[in-house]
Amino acid sequence: MAETQWDKLGAYLKETQILGSIQSTLYWDQNTGMPKKGASWRSDQLTYIAKILHKRNSSEEFLDLIKGAENEFNGYLETSSNLQIIQSKKRNIELLIKEFNRQNNLDPKLVECLAKSKSKGYESWQEAKKKSDFKIFLPFFEDLIKLRIEEANQISDKHTPWETLAQPFEPDLTLDWLNNILMPLKETIPSLLSDLKESEKYHWDLSPESQQNLCSKLLDEFGRDKDLVVVAKSPHPFSITLGPDDYRITTRIVEGEPLSSFLATAHEWGHSIYEQGLPSQSHQWFAWPLGQATSMGVHESQSLFWENRIVKSKSFSKRFFKYFVSEGCSLNNHSELWKSINHMQAGLNRVEADELSYGLHILIRTELEIELIQGDLKAKDVPSEWNKRYEELLGIRPSNDAEGCLQDVHWSEGAFGYFPSYLLGHLISAQISSKMEKELGLIDNLVDNGEYEKIIFWLKSNVHNYGRSVNSMELVNKVTGEELTSNYFVNHLRSKLKDFC
Amino acid sequence: MAETQWDKLGAYLKETQILGSIQSTLYWDQNTGMPKKGASWRSDQLTYIAKILHKRNSSEEFLDLIKGAENEFNGYLETSSNLQIIQSKKRNIELLIKEFNRQNNLDPKLVECLAKSKSKGYESWQEAKKKSDFKIFLPFFEDLIKLRIEEANQISDKHTPWETLAQPFEPDLTLDWLNNILMPLKETIPSLLSDLKESEKYHWDLSPESQQNLCSKLLDEFGRDKDLVVVAKSPHPFSITLGPDDYRITTRIVEGEPLSSFLATAHEWGHSIYEQGLPSQSHQWFAWPLGQATSMGVHESQSLFWENRIVKSKSFSKRFFKYFVSEGCSLNNHSELWKSINHMQAGLNRVEADELSYGLHILIRTELEIELIQGDLKAKDVPSEWNKRYEELLGIRPSNDAEGCLQDVHWSEGAFGYFPSYLLGHLISAQISSKMEKELGLIDNLVDNGEYEKIIFWLKSNVHNYGRSVNSMELVNKVTGEELTSNYFVNHLRSKLKDFC
Repeated sequence: MAETQWDKLGAYLKETQILGSIQSTLYWDQNTGMPKKGASWRSDQLTYIAKILHKRNSSEEFLDLIKGAENEFNGYLETSSNLQIIQSKKRNIELLIKEFNRQNNLDPKLVECLAKSKSKGYESWQEAKKKSDFKIFLPFFEDLIKLRIEEANQISDKHTPWETLAQPFEPDLTLDWLNNILMPLKETIPSLLSDLKESEKYHWDLSPESQQNLCSKLLDEFGRDKDLVVVAKSPHPFSITLGPDDYRITTRIVEGEPLSSFLATAHEWGHSIYEQGLPSQSHQWFAWPLGQATSMGVHESQSLFWENRIVKSKSFSKRFFKYFVSEGCSLNNHSELWKSINHMQAGLNRVEADELSYGLHILIRTELEIELIQGDLKAKDVPSEWNKRYEELLGIRPSNDAEGCLQDVHWSEGAFGYFPSYLLGHLISAQISSKMEKELGLIDNLVDNGEYEKIIFWLKSNVHNYGRSVNSMELVNKVTGEELTSNYFVNHLRSKLKDFC
Repeated sequence: MAETQWDKLGAYLKETQILGSIQSTLYWDQNTGMPKKGASWRSDQLTYIAKILHKRNSSEEFLDLIKGAENEFNGYLETSSNLQIIQSKKRNIELLIKEFNRQNNLDPKLVECLAKSKSKGYESWQEAKKKSDFKIFLPFFEDLIKLRIEEANQISDKHTPWETLAQPFEPDLTLDWLNNILMPLKETIPSLLSDLKESEKYHWDLSPESQQNLCSKLLDEFGRDKDLVVVAKSPHPFSITLGPDDYRITTRIVEGEPLSSFLATAHEWGHSIYEQGLPSQSHQWFAWPLGQATSMGVHESQSLFWENRIVKSKSFSKRFFKYFVSEGCSLNNHSELWKSINHMQAGLNRVEADELSYGLHILIRTELEIELIQGDLKAKDVPSEWNKRYEELLGIRPSNDAEGCLQDVHWSEGAFGYFPSYLLGHLISAQISSKMEKELGLIDNLVDNGEYEKIIFWLKSNVHNYGRSVNSMELVNKVTGEELTSNYFVNHLRSKLKDFC
């Protein structure tokens, strides 16, 4: 049988995906294994790959292949009646053209500069964070901001610059839509926070080995296949897919925070299980848009589901307390473990934050980066503005840059537009969880019975399996039958506060 | 200043080296981190990189760049009097042309088939070894042999097929030369072995953690820079360079063999310190031939130096015994540790073999693979031939394929012509060590005083710094003032046997 235009496009996309996954492998190694002095050469490698990836994604050859496949598909339309395949193929083509146009508008020189600037940003951020000195990072940060604004201008679509940078994370997002969703939270959360009574903080710790054992135990409990999912340590926890059957997650041990690595592991597991559940039929497979995650908000909703709905549930503490005991945990009973896991107190660190104050961490970052990209905020003023807003919204003030504006990796690699996804993830998770409970019964009961497989099956069938066939707003509507709203999240917070007091 | 032809060639070589080092990074990850199910996609990635590397290394563009640089250099000859630079540049060009011709003779399809076949070979070998079943590996092994013979025929230079395959490991090696060097050993070693009195074998063990601690301690002792050299675990120990400032070594824990990981670490450190000592002036830097290792025999001589001359010395046991004690070692004194490290008894495993019987392991493999490539031996008969020859030369017979012909990784990736380098390494190490002792005094005294820096400096100045400016035979001659001979190695064995009895 002659090779179809569709197959030719598929072969091209597979090669692109090979390069993309090589890039991811280099990134994985950079964060989990590479010696410090390897950074400069690694930057050369990543720059090289970014350059050829950009060339592939904006080449005439690629455009011709897309057009060829589109024409072939249009011919096929007249003779076919398989609506699902037609819709999938149509959506694949649409997304490819959209992405092509985005890439094609970029000057290759800018792409190369950006790749270098990201590497340098990351490197200087590491040093700046270690020495808690924003000034070390500042010149590279300024460079990154300048280049990313230039990028947004070159793409110059219908969106504002910040919206343009946010599109890859949250397709079709607008500032108006985002404000409508988030503003109620800016008013509600501080008032809930002020209602929060000082809760008892249990003082206990676990050795790094014990924490590692509990993380392994957790993944075993969730049904991790060791031949498919590998775990390592990195300065900042993350999850990454290196091939259609190659998933990696990382965690880190935080001194004095015995639950930090444990919660991070649950979180990254959620990311990974979403990737593992993406559709894998031939026309949607790995290399095609439809085989990919639809947005970072949805991605976060999946990680937050495992972290906040599963591990922070009462029945989970009841079920898992014995393992904590056997690792030397000094708490007296599972109720104390539950209170420890759910301890609520406004703190300086986003990753370690409780569910209640988490949203404020995001609101501050989102506002700052919008002002950096399309407002009047200067990079040099970030530390003082950061500290000021923490004091206003959370009532606490960082004592240095490491625990303040240098705490997160994202800006160091020029990733603007990413942070809101974390908060959208909370909202989506709350709304989807409510739907899941209507269909499967209370999550507390599912966890009590260890029915993780059932949960994973439901998530795969109802959420993961859509891939990029719908955007995040459409997905929420499909799964829950209504528009995304902050109500479910706020209700969840209120109910937890009630339980807690 | 206008860019010279030489600079243009350098930029091209750097890009090739970026790709080569990406290939190495994928290989590193495959062996140290990748989940088992990632193998198939990894094979696609490696095939892709091998294809574009081959294309680069055999392109018209590359040839034009070499010719352009050569012409420019010939013009420069008339006006320059810096003999050293002239010789370096001349040698760089010669090596590039030699390697280009080798690549250029290859059919790109064969290159692609070979890359796939290597990945499949490695994968099936892992399973075959685990199940101790050669038949699982056999069809892939047959495929590899067929393809590599085809490769040798396509390169079709003045050498026999096996010699052709051995050239990348040992440039300018011929079968006649090799036979002359190795044959005396086939006669001498078995007679020395038969003289060996049954020596006391100490029964002791160390926990994996203790072994790991001792390996770290060993590298600290040798002066490892943690920001430059990273250590991990893999099924087969190896050393690899991933960038001009990025060195990695692996080890493995063998149950019941408390010294295995320790000796492997010393061995891989030797490989790494050679790579770290290669010349780095601009015209020889990383990407250029002159900045690379000259042969695997020389590479092995450096790893064996640290394993056999340093760690197996009496003064090392004396110096290091206290660390073994603090890790729970049950030996009574440093003399027992020395006897343990130097325990001599013919065994089935090459990597765990003592210095005396090691050569026989190599002679068997070398003879078998020469017969496989250009003789009458069939792949299916390898297990029986392997076992027969072990019985004849070492007086012992493997009870299964895992401890017999499946023990080593090399053939699984089609690496024929590599094994002799291990034995040549012993010979080169012995001859160079003798010269070092004439200049610096007894190694035993140097170790006694912890003068590792002095040793490294001598090796760097006298051995490493040559890079590929000379081949291994010329290097030995330059360093020691005479041709390579097995005499120094045999003398070393005799003296050790005397010490031992």
